[in-house]
Amino acid sequence: MNEILREKLATVSVATLATALFKRGLRNQVIQGVHPVRAKGRNMVGPAFTLRYIPAREDRNQLAEFRNPEHPQRVAVETCPPGHVLVMDSRKDPRAASAGDILVTRLMVRGVAGVVTDGGFRDAATIGTLDIPAYHSRPSSPTNLTLHEALDLNMPIGCGDVAVFPGDIVVGDDDCVIVIPQAIAEEVADEAVEMTAYEDFVVEQVKAGTPIIGLYPRTQERFTAEFAAWRQREKR
Amino acid sequence: MNEILREKLATVSVATLATALFKRGLRNQVIQGVHPVRAKGRNMVGPAFTLRYIPAREDRNQLAEFRNPEHPQRVAVETCPPGHVLVMDSRKDPRAASAGDILVTRLMVRGVAGVVTDGGFRDAATIGTLDIPAYHSRPSSPTNLTLHEALDLNMPIGCGDVAVFPGDIVVGDDDCVIVIPQAIAEEVADEAVEMTAYEDFVVEQVKAGTPIIGLYPRTQERFTAEFAAWRQREKR
Amino acid sequence: MNEILREKLATVSVATLATALFKRGLRNQVIQGVHPVRAKGRNMVGPAFTLRYIPAREDRNQLAEFRNPEHPQRVAVETCPPGHVLVMDSRKDPRAASAGDILVTRLMVRGVAGVVTDGGFRDAATIGTLDIPAYHSRPSSPTNLTLHEALDLNMPIGCGDVAVFPGDIVVGDDDCVIVIPQAIAEEVADEAVEMTAYEDFVVEQVKAGTPIIGLYPRTQERFTAEFAAWRQREKR
Amino acid sequence: MNEILREKLATVSVATLATALFKRGLRNQVIQGVHPVRAKGRNMVGPAFTLRYIPAREDRNQLAEFRNPEHPQRVAVETCPPGHVLVMDSRKDPRAASAGDILVTRLMVRGVAGVVTDGGFRDAATIGTLDIPAYHSRPSSPTNLTLHEALDLNMPIGCGDVAVFPGDIVVGDDDCVIVIPQAIAEEVADEAVEMTAYEDFVVEQVKAGTPIIGLYPRTQERFTAEFAAWRQREKR
Amino acid sequence: MNEILREKLATVSVATLATALFKRGLRNQVIQGVHPVRAKGRNMVGPAFTLRYIPAREDRNQLAEFRNPEHPQRVAVETCPPGHVLVMDSRKDPRAASAGDILVTRLMVRGVAGVVTDGGFRDAATIGTLDIPAYHSRPSSPTNLTLHEALDLNMPIGCGDVAVFPGDIVVGDDDCVIVIPQAIAEEVADEAVEMTAYEDFVVEQVKAGTPIIGLYPRTQERFTAEFAAWRQREKR
Amino acid sequence: MNEILREKLATVSVATLATALFKRGLRNQVIQGVHPVRAKGRNMVGPAFTLRYIPAREDRNQLAEFRNPEHPQRVAVETCPPGHVLVMDSRKDPRAASAGDILVTRLMVRGVAGVVTDGGFRDAATIGTLDIPAYHSRPSSPTNLTLHEALDLNMPIGCGDVAVFPGDIVVGDDDCVIVIPQAIAEEVADEAVEMTAYEDFVVEQVKAGTPIIGLYPRTQERFTAEFAAWRQREKR
Repeated sequence: MNEILREKLATVSVATLATALFKRGLRNQVIQGVHPVRAKGRNMVGPAFTLRYIPAREDRNQLAEFRNPEHPQRVAVETCPPGHVLVMDSRKDPRAASAGDILVTRLMVRGVAGVVTDGGFRDAATIGTLDIPAYHSRPSSPTNLTLHEALDLNMPIGCGDVAVFPGDIVVGDDDCVIVIPQAIAEEVADEAVEMTAYEDFVVEQVKAGTPIIGLYPRTQERFTAEFAAWRQREKR
Repeated sequence: MNEILREKLATVSVATLATALFKRGLRNQVIQGVHPVRAKGRNMVGPAFTLRYIPAREDRNQLAEFRNPEHPQRVAVETCPPGHVLVMDSRKDPRAASAGDILVTRLMVRGVAGVVTDGGFRDAATIGTLDIPAYHSRPSSPTNLTLHEALDLNMPIGCGDVAVFPGDIVVGDDDCVIVIPQAIAEEVADEAVEMTAYEDFVVEQVKAGTPIIGLYPRTQERFTAEFAAWRQREKR
Repeated sequence: MNEILREKLATVSVATLATALFKRGLRNQVIQGVHPVRAKGRNMVGPAFTLRYIPAREDRNQLAEFRNPEHPQRVAVETCPPGHVLVMDSRKDPRAASAGDILVTRLMVRGVAGVVTDGGFRDAATIGTLDIPAYHSRPSSPTNLTLHEALDLNMPIGCGDVAVFPGDIVVGDDDCVIVIPQAIAEEVADEAVEMTAYEDFVVEQVKAGTPIIGLYPRTQERFTAEFAAWRQREKR
Repeated sequence: MNEILREKLATVSVATLATALFKRGLRNQVIQGVHPVRAKGRNMVGPAFTLRYIPAREDRNQLAEFRNPEHPQRVAVETCPPGHVLVMDSRKDPRAASAGDILVTRLMVRGVAGVVTDGGFRDAATIGTLDIPAYHSRPSSPTNLTLHEALDLNMPIGCGDVAVFPGDIVVGDDDCVIVIPQAIAEEVADEAVEMTAYEDFVVEQVKAGTPIIGLYPRTQERFTAEFAAWRQREKR
Repeated sequence: MNEILREKLATVSVATLATALFKRGLRNQVIQGVHPVRAKGRNMVGPAFTLRYIPAREDRNQLAEFRNPEHPQRVAVETCPPGHVLVMDSRKDPRAASAGDILVTRLMVRGVAGVVTDGGFRDAATIGTLDIPAYHSRPSSPTNLTLHEALDLNMPIGCGDVAVFPGDIVVGDDDCVIVIPQAIAEEVADEAVEMTAYEDFVVEQVKAGTPIIGLYPRTQERFTAEFAAWRQREKR
Repeated sequence: MNEILREKLATVSVATLATALFKRGLRNQVIQGVHPVRAKGRNMVGPAFTLRYIPAREDRNQLAEFRNPEHPQRVAVETCPPGHVLVMDSRKDPRAASAGDILVTRLMVRGVAGVVTDGGFRDAATIGTLDIPAYHSRPSSPTNLTLHEALDLNMPIGCGDVAVFPGDIVVGDDDCVIVIPQAIAEEVADEAVEMTAYEDFVVEQVKAGTPIIGLYPRTQERFTAEFAAWRQREKR
């Protein structure tokens, strides 16, 4: 993705993006049941690179599997492109881990933009201290082999009841993660930047005592002029 | 509510209140599945003002609805009386937001005592920084229109499996939120203040090495005198 | 348990222990749905001492029950041996408390190593400040009598879908809690210490830019020598 | 509702109606988690008359409440108009009953078209033998007072995650129940009758060996003529 | 239990018993989430004999365990007294079986009155054809060893969120199962028989067109006389 | 699959197969949460042919999609080989349909051995009358487009928490469905046939009054001879 788009998406909230997608008839793009391992105070932004797990069958998922250099989880960690977000379909099952601190450290070192699972991470307390955004359902210490078999890379998946296609733009803030279809990412980002400017203006007004009716959404004419003045003043 | 009652309820825990209500046969007054967006280190206290959501139907819940100055969610935010707690029945569904930071900021500015939903807030990270207690199930970025239609104000509702009647006294601490029927709020508050004094005495004793049997609850006579002395000493 | 074993288990993560147990065919030893009331940055370690709750029947669970010096919850708090971990079977139901701050304070004063419930604690915010590790599902203010009858001590129980036999070794870190069968605790601890040394070496390598394939797990010969040198250097 | 509409809706399936509503952007009209107490082999059809329950508070919900001739549950049973469907919002909680066989018998005698709850019925085995369609989540013997307080009549409610407005047209078959907004009931019924004719034609074709691609949906021209001939032959 | 009590309880519904217990402050005696494997059209009645499962640990639950003549599940099946109901605490987990058709056949042959689990039975279709009432959550083919370790007999347990003490009287009908504390079983049975007489009278009245208000519950005086006449006529 | 294997598997229960797999360390092969749309009184047997759904995105899942002759759901129905079982990964979400009666009729006509989803079928009452075994979670009338996008065919999937690889042998009876890894299907079938013979002998013994201890499992020597005689007599 281009850096201008990335920068725009770094400045808007998932809530604002959700509303911009809602306007376009996309009601179901926020990954449900997932939160930051630790709040980073900055957005995660990047195209999706996916890893799919299916339920583990005991004979196929012994520890020796990890010795296979083609093990999809390990290959995912080494091939997810820098700047991308690794999104894992763990079937919303956090009873065993999707990954641990060593793999997430490797993703960080490789410049990956973030990592998301609808299951849980092991070593979550450590992952929270790393300089890479990570989102999951809850900490989960059992090895992924217990319940999850890593199967394939960069296929369309479900994650937290949301469809994720490789290349979709993934944005996470301190609340939630959202998936923006690639084809509309630019227009959604632009609209969200505009909406954010108005929302920031609104917050200032509300803190100063203005009631919300007529202001949010804007139905009173006077706020048009005041917002224009504010933008000029704030250079936004 | 009178300020003396408010002050009493500011000094007792939800756990103590739950026990005082349990004594009166009310076993089900703690709102289940709800916690502070961010711990405030002080109690939320106020009479309930309610907002009821029903499931959203797509044709009735487009963004244009918010332009209606009579939209019940917006009216709730402008009419919930200062000192009251806005309690929302979101049918325990946090997959879409019950409200966001702009509305909660407005509630704060208007002097509302707190806000509770059995769903989730969008902009939760921001709401956590505001000087108003807020309780929810989890952060939820999608606009409320996605799943919730705001329907009516100040009707009896359910919230987290608890009946909430307008005017019931709502108290929240860093753990939970409880609903006290209005008619017994005074006597429950008085009893809770007394219980709290004894509990504080007990904690001091336990920290000093006293076993709990006989002390909590008090069945050994000697603690009656010691507690009386403690109260005098502590001026409680 | 002997102090050497305790010290070993203080230095390894639950995730590493889970893998060591997985190797032995034990796939289900991490207590599901439980987390620290507040992260302590150190491990909880001790043999299990158990308390079993069954559903409360109203006529058997009035407040007067606590006046009985033989009430099993109170007896548990006074008889759980120092250095042990009190593990409670609350049937994964956090709608009423398993215990509160007074009892947990007493456990702390008595030198108990920690406390675990698959329900919830009341006064959880206070319990989080105590110098004793505590794990639960979520804060829960209602008194245990509302839903739980304390029934018997030191029987085998289930906790978070894991079998817990009295004397099993319980280890908790900032993510999760695991139960190690007593008979294999020594060998599992030894193996986990070895694994931890290698994992620490791996993290250092990964932070320095080494890919994980061949390194974790170790399938490339060169890492054998490098690890040996690292151990000597690090005196581990 | 007029009898022609009722007769049309008696001949189409809930699945077909769901597709007709989906075409109009209404994706969420099938009441989730509800099934017939006993399959009747015919449709339930009628306008919604609603009853709302909130969680029961013990002091307000003793058996004596039923002696009140204004008790909303009893008033609902006596005032729901003949030909209407009584729909109850039980907050998806079947742990206590929404109603029992005596009340449902009374509804039957009064000519009510059916009864739906997103909770459960007591005396369900008996209700299954009555000549009135009834839909619920599961049998539930405890009296409604245990968990549900009947609050108000003919308000908009949620039932099984669907918005139900009084007067909406409710249709149930042996699988599910659907809610059709009143304003579009005629056009939806007409479209469903047309769709049903084609589906019946398709089933006949498929049973005779025709592949579905091109037939369902109809994209091969030849089926247009064959369907026309079939309609003439079948007089539909 | 004496045969007169057994006969009384054979003629009343679980719903009626639930109301009689509700009057006595016992709100939580119906086993939640359990239904007949197949409706028998007659009541199951008998004192509870209990079996407790805890989560299975793999090393303790291999098939060889069943060769142990002291295996608690097998001992339960051979020692549950005739006329009693075997009630199993399976922790509401139906992912593996609580028992199968061979053991239930043995219970039938031995004259046991019925069998209840809050998990599931394997061979459920066959169990449904046996002449012994059986209640569970759903069919479940995996052997109990997969998830459940049979631990002890005739201890107080939880089953479907209800406390079950050995000797409590268990009654099941085609809807649900209820647990009556032993000490009040006689009085509850007597009251339920009386209530049932009135309910039968009410049903007859309602079928004849009488409104329920004033009749159920009886607040109009005239029904007192009519009921008395009906009892005489019906010899009840 | 060869017909001899098919015939063997037609005569054994899923419970027996689950035990045979449990002996081989495969504890998790029964599809959880799935039951027959209607009991057929005979087994479903066939190799798995899979269809994977991901969550639906509104812009990709309008009714027009079905006009695409390559729509994977429709292609699945036309290409699943006769004698195979179509297994669908619907992410355990029955809120929208996985398929309806027209498609299942087509599968029946084409000689497909059965159909399984961990979601729900629309037109389930009709599907129950067809001469093809079908298994689901519950009836669900909304079109699959509402929540499910059919994505790909004959990939490894999860279904009801079980891994399903194309070609695995799927067996369903009136209780449950199980997945047997292809490589061990023969040996598992053979063992299950042997086990079934013994179980049938045991049932006969138990019905005649023999206690189970020593008989099931067989630890008393005398049953070896008696079973041998029984087999000869029964020609099994």
